[in-house]
Amino acid sequence: MNRLGAVEAVRKLQRRELTAVQLVRACFARIEQRENTVHAWTALQKQAALDRAEELDRGALRGPLHGLPIGVKDLFDTVDLPTRYGSPIYDRHRPGLDAASVALCRNAGAIVIGKTVTTEFATYQAGPTRNPRNEAYTPGGSSSGSAAAVADDMVPFALGSQTAGSIIRPASYCGVVGYKPTFGGIPRAGVKSLAESLDTVGGFARSVPDVALFSSVMMRDTRMLDLTYEDKPRVGMYRSLQWRHAQAETKEAFAQAAAILSRAGARVEEIPLPPEHCVLVQLHSDIMAFEASQALAYERTEHAVQLSPKLQAILESGAQISAEQHINNLARAAESRARVDAWFQDYDVLLAPSASGEAPFADLGTGDPQFSRAWTLFGLPCINLPFATGPQGLPVGLQLVGPRHQDHRMLAIAAWIHARLLTANSPDIGASDMWPRG
Amino acid sequence: MNRLGAVEAVRKLQRRELTAVQLVRACFARIEQRENTVHAWTALQKQAALDRAEELDRGALRGPLHGLPIGVKDLFDTVDLPTRYGSPIYDRHRPGLDAASVALCRNAGAIVIGKTVTTEFATYQAGPTRNPRNEAYTPGGSSSGSAAAVADDMVPFALGSQTAGSIIRPASYCGVVGYKPTFGGIPRAGVKSLAESLDTVGGFARSVPDVALFSSVMMRDTRMLDLTYEDKPRVGMYRSLQWRHAQAETKEAFAQAAAILSRAGARVEEIPLPPEHCVLVQLHSDIMAFEASQALAYERTEHAVQLSPKLQAILESGAQISAEQHINNLARAAESRARVDAWFQDYDVLLAPSASGEAPFADLGTGDPQFSRAWTLFGLPCINLPFATGPQGLPVGLQLVGPRHQDHRMLAIAAWIHARLLTANSPDIGASDMWPRG
Repeated sequence: MNRLGAVEAVRKLQRRELTAVQLVRACFARIEQRENTVHAWTALQKQAALDRAEELDRGALRGPLHGLPIGVKDLFDTVDLPTRYGSPIYDRHRPGLDAASVALCRNAGAIVIGKTVTTEFATYQAGPTRNPRNEAYTPGGSSSGSAAAVADDMVPFALGSQTAGSIIRPASYCGVVGYKPTFGGIPRAGVKSLAESLDTVGGFARSVPDVALFSSVMMRDTRMLDLTYEDKPRVGMYRSLQWRHAQAETKEAFAQAAAILSRAGARVEEIPLPPEHCVLVQLHSDIMAFEASQALAYERTEHAVQLSPKLQAILESGAQISAEQHINNLARAAESRARVDAWFQDYDVLLAPSASGEAPFADLGTGDPQFSRAWTLFGLPCINLPFATGPQGLPVGLQLVGPRHQDHRMLAIAAWIHARLLTANSPDIGASDMWPRG
Repeated sequence: MNRLGAVEAVRKLQRRELTAVQLVRACFARIEQRENTVHAWTALQKQAALDRAEELDRGALRGPLHGLPIGVKDLFDTVDLPTRYGSPIYDRHRPGLDAASVALCRNAGAIVIGKTVTTEFATYQAGPTRNPRNEAYTPGGSSSGSAAAVADDMVPFALGSQTAGSIIRPASYCGVVGYKPTFGGIPRAGVKSLAESLDTVGGFARSVPDVALFSSVMMRDTRMLDLTYEDKPRVGMYRSLQWRHAQAETKEAFAQAAAILSRAGARVEEIPLPPEHCVLVQLHSDIMAFEASQALAYERTEHAVQLSPKLQAILESGAQISAEQHINNLARAAESRARVDAWFQDYDVLLAPSASGEAPFADLGTGDPQFSRAWTLFGLPCINLPFATGPQGLPVGLQLVGPRHQDHRMLAIAAWIHARLLTANSPDIGASDMWPRG
């Protein structure tokens, strides 16, 4: 029962064919069985979740998320659970309010069962989470616990955030759908700020319609509930100038997807890569470092010794960038963004790698966000579609990128594309059944 | 001594001609004398401020704000002082960290002596603060306490924020310099979010160089420390389509400024108002209402009864706007912004009204932000220059608007313009001496 997707579960809950108590119990049974291996959670509240579930079971239907258990990345403030932001500085922190996104989910009937592991302030210092497909590997970061919890069927949905590649990469490594909306799409109030012009709230689920259901509530966009798409999409294949860092499994998945989509009637064309895109990874890194050194000023000036050396180095490098240089960087990003925006006159979506390949070993860190930096910099909506398998039997995803503020349409096309990719690969099973489960 | 400006005070502090303890004591003496009338503060920490001052006096020079006492709008998180966001919901709130802007000031040597009154979540429900020039009148909002404290010589600088007109309007009503940087210029981390695409951190001081000193620290832009300007500015006079709401004193100040600047050698031209600007006030209001209803989701869903009827109405109206409409609104704002950006090929700054006139009576609310909405919507840097006097003897300011991310240049031109406006009006005194003091 814990393996039910959100759309299916909420349908049963609304028909009272399933109780919220049953669903919460099933999720906790899975967590109790697996958490010692996966380490997805920083805090859990079983009794409070069951009490809330019982209340929902007894009462009227609460909203479109009635009775659905969710996980919340521990970068988001919560009124009833500790919030550590992945840092020992906040070991005893209780923010006293809910992040806006959490409040919107709760108000629509969702049950927050716990907080999920984030890397240190959503940067690179890993938490304890392991990839649920094989615990020798990283789940990716920074939304490590949210991606792992959803992949391991502990919850049907979990909140995450992306400043570089913190949704798309863990989704790809864990084999789930990860969705980063257009910049500003879901409110950020109550989410610890890392880089103001980049931070974006999103989430993880095991299917496109499941992620659309939650996003529809948080973005107040009911168009996302109807993912009907009758057309044939025009797909621009964007290898990216980081292609040389892509491993064989990613290159193969990319080619395979192009073939499948062409056969399905999509117009698939390779986009010539603008040479100036070679600067985008560095541009994003510099903008993020400058803004992080500003946003984390309190931690940097008052608690430096409790920051990891990795984060200290990033903040230090950011502090070396002058305002003048930063403003130039923002201007260059805006120019580049305008040129990419124009591509969407010819393409409905772009298809791009989600990560260089399968998840790396856990002791090598949380992987590299290089394939996501440009899209986050541009503020474009992105989604990871789990699809292929690498040499270690781990998931490999592909990324769709849509035009700004056309999220509802991008999600509809993503559902169309994902269905075709999955059918071609393994006609009888859903994406998240393609890889080993604990 | 409490009347010293920040630049002058810090020069004396750095030469050890003045101690931080003396300055803090002088500020508290003024507060003790006047706070019962002005009601600028929600919390004060005299002993902690004196302890910190003593520490600074004994130690090495700490930074460019060494020993300067400041006030912090109670919308900003502070680790050592309660933070109410102007709402009874947060009566017992202690955030457990400093907003990034506060940390940057403290790290440069500033001493936070207390929190200043904000309206409810920086919207329209007034706090107890009165206009220090005449307590029958409002100081404006939402940064009511910060503007009043600086105008009344209680502190040389105070932090504020603007989502509609919350810096420029109270600065105009109280007769101080109020500066709203380019959107994103000062980090927002730790400031309660009201409308993500509009909220901007800024501050109040009694002169342009004083506000530039603090901004230079928080924006990490040392160019702001040299306000030399040798040229003659090209000034675009922008009446605004709200001109019919401008009172006689504002119209007169506007005409007088044009004449003074022309005589001083500036090129002064009236900008023809684009008819489509008639929608900007409504566009800003709608974007703000939508985003506020999202950002304040926790308060709206969990603590509705503790919200003022005024705020409830705004959030309710925002909740009626669909995502589709909001996205259209953002697109229309972006188009309009691009056209105004192009004006800066012909003009170095725009001169515009700051408010319709003098401060209204306190029981009529905090005044109308209509003359600021367009500039906040466009994210352009703005500064209020206190200059004229209305029929009740209260201050009337004028607003300069600069090109995006050219804040250092706008501040230099503002200093040039302000010097000329003041000399013409009252050759022997500074701006803040033009109006009655308690």
